[in-house]
Amino acid sequence: MTDLNQPLGGNTMPRFGGPATMMRLPAQNSAAGLDACFIGVPLDIGTSNRPGTRLGPRQIRDESRMLRPYNMATGAAPFDSLQVADLGDVPINTFDLKKSVGIIADHYRAVLAHDVIPLTLGGDHTITWPILRAIAEKHGPVALIHVDAHADTNADMFGETVAHGCPFRRAHEEGLLIDDKVFQIGLRGTGYAPADFDWGRARGWSVIPAEACWHRSLIPLMAQIRDRIGDAPVYLTFDIDSLDPAFAPGTGTAEIGGLTIQQGMEIVRGCAGLNLVGCDLVEVSPPYDMPGNTAVAGAGLLFEMLCALPGVSRTGQGATSDIAF
Amino acid sequence: MTDLNQPLGGNTMPRFGGPATMMRLPAQNSAAGLDACFIGVPLDIGTSNRPGTRLGPRQIRDESRMLRPYNMATGAAPFDSLQVADLGDVPINTFDLKKSVGIIADHYRAVLAHDVIPLTLGGDHTITWPILRAIAEKHGPVALIHVDAHADTNADMFGETVAHGCPFRRAHEEGLLIDDKVFQIGLRGTGYAPADFDWGRARGWSVIPAEACWHRSLIPLMAQIRDRIGDAPVYLTFDIDSLDPAFAPGTGTAEIGGLTIQQGMEIVRGCAGLNLVGCDLVEVSPPYDMPGNTAVAGAGLLFEMLCALPGVSRTGQGATSDIAF
Amino acid sequence: MTDLNQPLGGNTMPRFGGPATMMRLPAQNSAAGLDACFIGVPLDIGTSNRPGTRLGPRQIRDESRMLRPYNMATGAAPFDSLQVADLGDVPINTFDLKKSVGIIADHYRAVLAHDVIPLTLGGDHTITWPILRAIAEKHGPVALIHVDAHADTNADMFGETVAHGCPFRRAHEEGLLIDDKVFQIGLRGTGYAPADFDWGRARGWSVIPAEACWHRSLIPLMAQIRDRIGDAPVYLTFDIDSLDPAFAPGTGTAEIGGLTIQQGMEIVRGCAGLNLVGCDLVEVSPPYDMPGNTAVAGAGLLFEMLCALPGVSRTGQGATSDIAF
Amino acid sequence: MTDLNQPLGGNTMPRFGGPATMMRLPAQNSAAGLDACFIGVPLDIGTSNRPGTRLGPRQIRDESRMLRPYNMATGAAPFDSLQVADLGDVPINTFDLKKSVGIIADHYRAVLAHDVIPLTLGGDHTITWPILRAIAEKHGPVALIHVDAHADTNADMFGETVAHGCPFRRAHEEGLLIDDKVFQIGLRGTGYAPADFDWGRARGWSVIPAEACWHRSLIPLMAQIRDRIGDAPVYLTFDIDSLDPAFAPGTGTAEIGGLTIQQGMEIVRGCAGLNLVGCDLVEVSPPYDMPGNTAVAGAGLLFEMLCALPGVSRTGQGATSDIAF
Amino acid sequence: MTDLNQPLGGNTMPRFGGPATMMRLPAQNSAAGLDACFIGVPLDIGTSNRPGTRLGPRQIRDESRMLRPYNMATGAAPFDSLQVADLGDVPINTFDLKKSVGIIADHYRAVLAHDVIPLTLGGDHTITWPILRAIAEKHGPVALIHVDAHADTNADMFGETVAHGCPFRRAHEEGLLIDDKVFQIGLRGTGYAPADFDWGRARGWSVIPAEACWHRSLIPLMAQIRDRIGDAPVYLTFDIDSLDPAFAPGTGTAEIGGLTIQQGMEIVRGCAGLNLVGCDLVEVSPPYDMPGNTAVAGAGLLFEMLCALPGVSRTGQGATSDIAF
Amino acid sequence: MTDLNQPLGGNTMPRFGGPATMMRLPAQNSAAGLDACFIGVPLDIGTSNRPGTRLGPRQIRDESRMLRPYNMATGAAPFDSLQVADLGDVPINTFDLKKSVGIIADHYRAVLAHDVIPLTLGGDHTITWPILRAIAEKHGPVALIHVDAHADTNADMFGETVAHGCPFRRAHEEGLLIDDKVFQIGLRGTGYAPADFDWGRARGWSVIPAEACWHRSLIPLMAQIRDRIGDAPVYLTFDIDSLDPAFAPGTGTAEIGGLTIQQGMEIVRGCAGLNLVGCDLVEVSPPYDMPGNTAVAGAGLLFEMLCALPGVSRTGQGATSDIAF
Repeated sequence: MTDLNQPLGGNTMPRFGGPATMMRLPAQNSAAGLDACFIGVPLDIGTSNRPGTRLGPRQIRDESRMLRPYNMATGAAPFDSLQVADLGDVPINTFDLKKSVGIIADHYRAVLAHDVIPLTLGGDHTITWPILRAIAEKHGPVALIHVDAHADTNADMFGETVAHGCPFRRAHEEGLLIDDKVFQIGLRGTGYAPADFDWGRARGWSVIPAEACWHRSLIPLMAQIRDRIGDAPVYLTFDIDSLDPAFAPGTGTAEIGGLTIQQGMEIVRGCAGLNLVGCDLVEVSPPYDMPGNTAVAGAGLLFEMLCALPGVSRTGQGATSDIAF
Repeated sequence: MTDLNQPLGGNTMPRFGGPATMMRLPAQNSAAGLDACFIGVPLDIGTSNRPGTRLGPRQIRDESRMLRPYNMATGAAPFDSLQVADLGDVPINTFDLKKSVGIIADHYRAVLAHDVIPLTLGGDHTITWPILRAIAEKHGPVALIHVDAHADTNADMFGETVAHGCPFRRAHEEGLLIDDKVFQIGLRGTGYAPADFDWGRARGWSVIPAEACWHRSLIPLMAQIRDRIGDAPVYLTFDIDSLDPAFAPGTGTAEIGGLTIQQGMEIVRGCAGLNLVGCDLVEVSPPYDMPGNTAVAGAGLLFEMLCALPGVSRTGQGATSDIAF
Repeated sequence: MTDLNQPLGGNTMPRFGGPATMMRLPAQNSAAGLDACFIGVPLDIGTSNRPGTRLGPRQIRDESRMLRPYNMATGAAPFDSLQVADLGDVPINTFDLKKSVGIIADHYRAVLAHDVIPLTLGGDHTITWPILRAIAEKHGPVALIHVDAHADTNADMFGETVAHGCPFRRAHEEGLLIDDKVFQIGLRGTGYAPADFDWGRARGWSVIPAEACWHRSLIPLMAQIRDRIGDAPVYLTFDIDSLDPAFAPGTGTAEIGGLTIQQGMEIVRGCAGLNLVGCDLVEVSPPYDMPGNTAVAGAGLLFEMLCALPGVSRTGQGATSDIAF
Repeated sequence: MTDLNQPLGGNTMPRFGGPATMMRLPAQNSAAGLDACFIGVPLDIGTSNRPGTRLGPRQIRDESRMLRPYNMATGAAPFDSLQVADLGDVPINTFDLKKSVGIIADHYRAVLAHDVIPLTLGGDHTITWPILRAIAEKHGPVALIHVDAHADTNADMFGETVAHGCPFRRAHEEGLLIDDKVFQIGLRGTGYAPADFDWGRARGWSVIPAEACWHRSLIPLMAQIRDRIGDAPVYLTFDIDSLDPAFAPGTGTAEIGGLTIQQGMEIVRGCAGLNLVGCDLVEVSPPYDMPGNTAVAGAGLLFEMLCALPGVSRTGQGATSDIAF
Repeated sequence: MTDLNQPLGGNTMPRFGGPATMMRLPAQNSAAGLDACFIGVPLDIGTSNRPGTRLGPRQIRDESRMLRPYNMATGAAPFDSLQVADLGDVPINTFDLKKSVGIIADHYRAVLAHDVIPLTLGGDHTITWPILRAIAEKHGPVALIHVDAHADTNADMFGETVAHGCPFRRAHEEGLLIDDKVFQIGLRGTGYAPADFDWGRARGWSVIPAEACWHRSLIPLMAQIRDRIGDAPVYLTFDIDSLDPAFAPGTGTAEIGGLTIQQGMEIVRGCAGLNLVGCDLVEVSPPYDMPGNTAVAGAGLLFEMLCALPGVSRTGQGATSDIAF
Repeated sequence: MTDLNQPLGGNTMPRFGGPATMMRLPAQNSAAGLDACFIGVPLDIGTSNRPGTRLGPRQIRDESRMLRPYNMATGAAPFDSLQVADLGDVPINTFDLKKSVGIIADHYRAVLAHDVIPLTLGGDHTITWPILRAIAEKHGPVALIHVDAHADTNADMFGETVAHGCPFRRAHEEGLLIDDKVFQIGLRGTGYAPADFDWGRARGWSVIPAEACWHRSLIPLMAQIRDRIGDAPVYLTFDIDSLDPAFAPGTGTAEIGGLTIQQGMEIVRGCAGLNLVGCDLVEVSPPYDMPGNTAVAGAGLLFEMLCALPGVSRTGQGATSDIAF
């Protein structure tokens, strides 16, 4: 255990100091020897409304400084069993979205030359398409747990096929997904056509709209999803706008009536036991996140993703109440 | 259908561009030929605590830019069946509250000379009294669904009978309301007397305090309210401070322990089937709404109101989940 | 009743004017003759992450200006039966945390020379330790209802035994608590060790993690806690970070997945009937609370604490719904 | 000297604690025995653009907490020679501007029954008219030093004669001013007519537009103004929007190209030696003043006004440089 | 004169209401019949650091609401002599910068088919290149007054020739500029090479660095520039980051040590008498402009540009001081 | 030259990505081999008013991302001649100010074991005292250029000798300064006694108050100071609150009437030629610096300090104007 990287502790350096890496982990240039890694993709030129996700990776890293190594609720102890580091950012081309897609895919291909699970700090949702390309090249088509306010299956936006509203249509067209193992949770809001959410359904995807989640726990939902996915490789993509703006104000395409953060945490924790091969957390926009709490949420959900990875040991009694009520 | 006004689409003009009208609909000066219309009332001099609602109409319009024409959850397609436009603002007298009441009433009388349903962007809650005057002159006394943290039935405030805490007492005194069809949802907080919420009750109104709504769906409540109202003409007035400050931080008289936005949406959606003759959304205060999400909520609720109007066609399967859980 | 201090009413002075005291109550220098009092402790040098709670008392007082004297939900009428005033701030030494602990204890000893219940406006959580010292000197060891995201039972932080993560360990060591009557509600997040929440448990304390509270009412929990405490003297300490950041964004060590404000209000209201001898509301950080609503929440919870004190009369029907659903 | 009120010192109570009065001076209800007093007028319903000055007095008081008793540049020691207190706020009627004018005039009449110089914390500029009424009733017509971006001599606004753009026309009409001793400094921006600034000129007033002040010291200007005023009683009214928005962002009718704060300080310091009988600082709007520095400027300028009053002793060498350059 | 469009006055509609067009002028779709027009270009994907200029046109229009029709300092009365309207926004492709350049050029070609002077609301500085293309097609190569912190003459950025750091190199390469009549004012900061500002110099351009402007008026500079330009057609491009961040905080590539707003106004006013054929104001980024004053500055400078156009009548005595000092 | 560390360029990684180190330089743990280094001291518990400087080093580093390697105005090319790196933060004890002083001194002793010039990112001004200790141990007593609104020569604050208002008195007492070569520039505001600025004068220090600097260039001042210092070792300490709040809003003890940023830059640039042995930039408080521009200023001034160090080569013509005016 002493060989494994550990987050810099608050008793060694005050939490507001030290390196502004994810969880104050060591920065590394190569994925060699790692079990999991954090990667930033500072892109926002795929965004259709408010900008700002280009600053998401920096801000999520900054606000991750409070995260300690053990997950009190699940007992997960990721740094007891996995070698983890922060690999820094992908050098996207901020003036050309289409080129950035290629840069991202190539960057993840290089990372995935090693046997490592990437946890990505977005960036707008455009980035998931090239990441899935690299993932599928290594693992084959994957099951997808897609948490979002939007289906992101537009044929195009403003005539463009590359945009943050299109990644999963592109991924489908390239055969990157196992269609009967795709789950879209949290969809809601307004659309250009009544059938906007049915494009995936026609391909076998399952849609769980936000309204179906209101006022309840999502633990039973995740049990069913785990059952349907079985041991297929799974990619988890979590758009922070799946959450209601009360819980994630700092995002670009806010939609009212979303999931609660508690439900968001149930979804990520409910992925434990799956064969996760990659995860991302996208669409945190710092200019709209004045006290920084959307970044706190993004950092916390990324930590929950890390805790849900295969091979993470679990200790302690977790979040059991001493009073039944 | 091609004759009906449509919101300017995001594939024609980026959402952050184009006219800053409600939903980027055409601006019009007259209500002639319209089925429904949006009107702004930029008033805040009736406010007793934080100011700022004078900027509410501008900000709600600005943040309405993301709204697409179809309601994915309810299947409502308002622009397939109604002619809708933005009629701009009422030229209130910002130095004289009492005169503004007269200006507003006259303005709505002129609008209601046409057979149109007004959807109002407030402004503080003072404005609902003169609007109700004009409404009742056309439709007779109305049923009222009043969503709010406060009863707004003060005899006076600081000795004044015109203020944002008095509109419904004034409306009652003028015989504008059907007393056994008045429903006040979300009341809570502190009062000047233990009986502050009982003034309406003594007149036959029903009070549903916020606490009665905690931790649950309001769909059953709305079913009962629809039942009690029947086919009477109904006015819906939605004070954004009915919502908990978590969901609507940008307002002047914030009260903790409020409704969730999900409950707010259930209330508005639960008005479908009623004979709605007017709606308003009041008390959004932009200076206290830094990332703009209270205006996003206000705009979204106004769209839900439009979707709940009589005569709106519904298509699509709406928000059904592909996984039962 | 006319002899009792009353909050300055909104019909006498606009709410945004008048003295910036708690609830615009009279300011007093001595606790003589008071039944309850508000005291500010403007300390933040015990904080480990974001600073700012030094400004908490000023901001809570400012935002308390909307509070009227009657509690509409519970019918509590504290100013009909208790003499209450604002005693101002403790002159802490902002350059020396350890000396401040002594100053605070001495200050409360002087206050508690009178038969008064102190309601404290924090300040960071370090302050509860010296307050408990003075409380226990007067009342003996006390039961503790501790609402918080964190257990605050660290042996030390950065080698220091005085810090905002340690007060309840210090209180235990000094014998200030009745161990089988200590209840920690809302704990969650990450830890330095899997057993971080078990230190109290080993001493007989009860932990109710946040996850056990999700999606439900806490009224049943409070019934059980009241039952276990009986008539022992009780201290209620409420860290605003027990609430989810959606409800209390302005705090220093935000943790996702917290309690809702509705649950927070159920906890405080559920303390009515107990022998409360003191209460505090800590960790409001104004620099991170841009529209001021965390201070609104802090002020509102302090008013709920006042309403829950022994001897408060209750009138009115409270928050009953006129429609059962 | 020991009998005179002193600001609560930072070595007695941390600056972020203690009473939120002006300079942390004692609060008093009566002007009896005072030489000078601070009074708040929390009014913003006379405002034509952004609201918020209703919160000006609270915020200016809050941010005055840093002010120590001695003026290092001028050597003024106001608390060595004058008895000063904070008289709290005028209970304006926030729902009726015209009534508020009467309330303000009456309030100042009562204050001026004592031999005291009022220093007013606004509030929008409407308030200067009723203050001047009470001032002139006591002292006769006064000379006026009016620092502002706007002439505030409109005949009416939106048909109303009472508004923040009209006070000096009203004051002239009522004979409150000595016309050849009126000086308007800092005027600029846009107008409804080319002659907007000439109304006063036609009555003998002197206009010193902002452009005439650019890139230079105003010490020579003030020497001339002092010369022209002689020993007439003088009222100083300082609209914070006279300053460029860089120096005073938090105001309602910001105009580019304004005075610098250094020039503003030269103006106020340049009033020393005059027979000042009253001063105000208006138009600070806290909702638009996020870090609070406009209130810092307002508080600082009010302190400079206090230092410029007749009878203030001066000690020390002031702001002389040890290096000539 | 009655035939000419006028800004909607504050006595007709409160300034915070009415259409959110530039100066509340009429919106029009065609430039036919206009002498000058405002056009928005909501682009920010050419930005290299902070994003947000996509929202610039909306925010500048919003904050232009205070502008009245007459320029008090210069006496300019643009609406007495010119027909002006707001032509709305260019529908740029927010997902493809290179295509947007083409869209912008085509849009301005269509506008310039009419005999109209376009005043552009940016948008990032990339937009000036395609605007200059259309301008030069109509007027031939132009003189250029370029006010900026940056030379914007990079060969490329991140390998791309289209970006906000390159427009004037592109314009030069295409022969759009009269090289000995190009003036770059306000350049400063850091560079990739010591000769970063010399590229233009080598082509005959004149560089006036910010440092040369410190502590002084720019009226003499503008006199020289007018002299050198003579009667050549001139394009004025004003990057708001030419101003020091104190005066224009809301921008993406802030550089310390910039011009003051007073100097900025002197530059624009100093263009009166030139044969201006187009102007733009770029790089206002609303997410970084919290109280909105950078947009106020942008709107004010655009009004000053309008006032400086050929054919604008001038009346009144302007900004002369009644006291010489 | 190729052996020297270079800031990560914007054509290699977008400026909003990459490592959040100072100027995106390499992070290093040891000063071995360096000529200059950046060090953060994340301390704010020595602050007497607004907190937040603990986050200064992180925010300054973040906002330093725009800095390119060449100084266009002075021609300085620091990375052509010096080996520079970011050494990270000092692990201060955030719960004990006095212990932190010892930690800081020890940390700098270890750094100064190497022949390196430290450039410090504060942190509140308390930190300069222990830094000066380590500096004087290496270099002997030093000349001091102290740019600040405050003299920081209090005997104590609240009875404490360690606080941000005392460092230079402590430094004098320990013999760390060459008294006739101490220059305090920018002092102003209010004091506890008329002689607050005279304590240093009595020891031979030179005070240049802010007022002496208004409306003019400081280049002549710096020439005189360079002359007086000669070749003595010099320490430059720059408190950002020396600047007027217009230029540096994000600080804790803002004082109106300060220096302009242009003057601040003249001071730092005017240090070129001196034997600088260390520099710091203190009191940037990010929670009060919403758009981040105070950190931009802090980063820019630190770069100017680097450029002024002995041994930095200078190339290019610098900031000469092509037009004399």
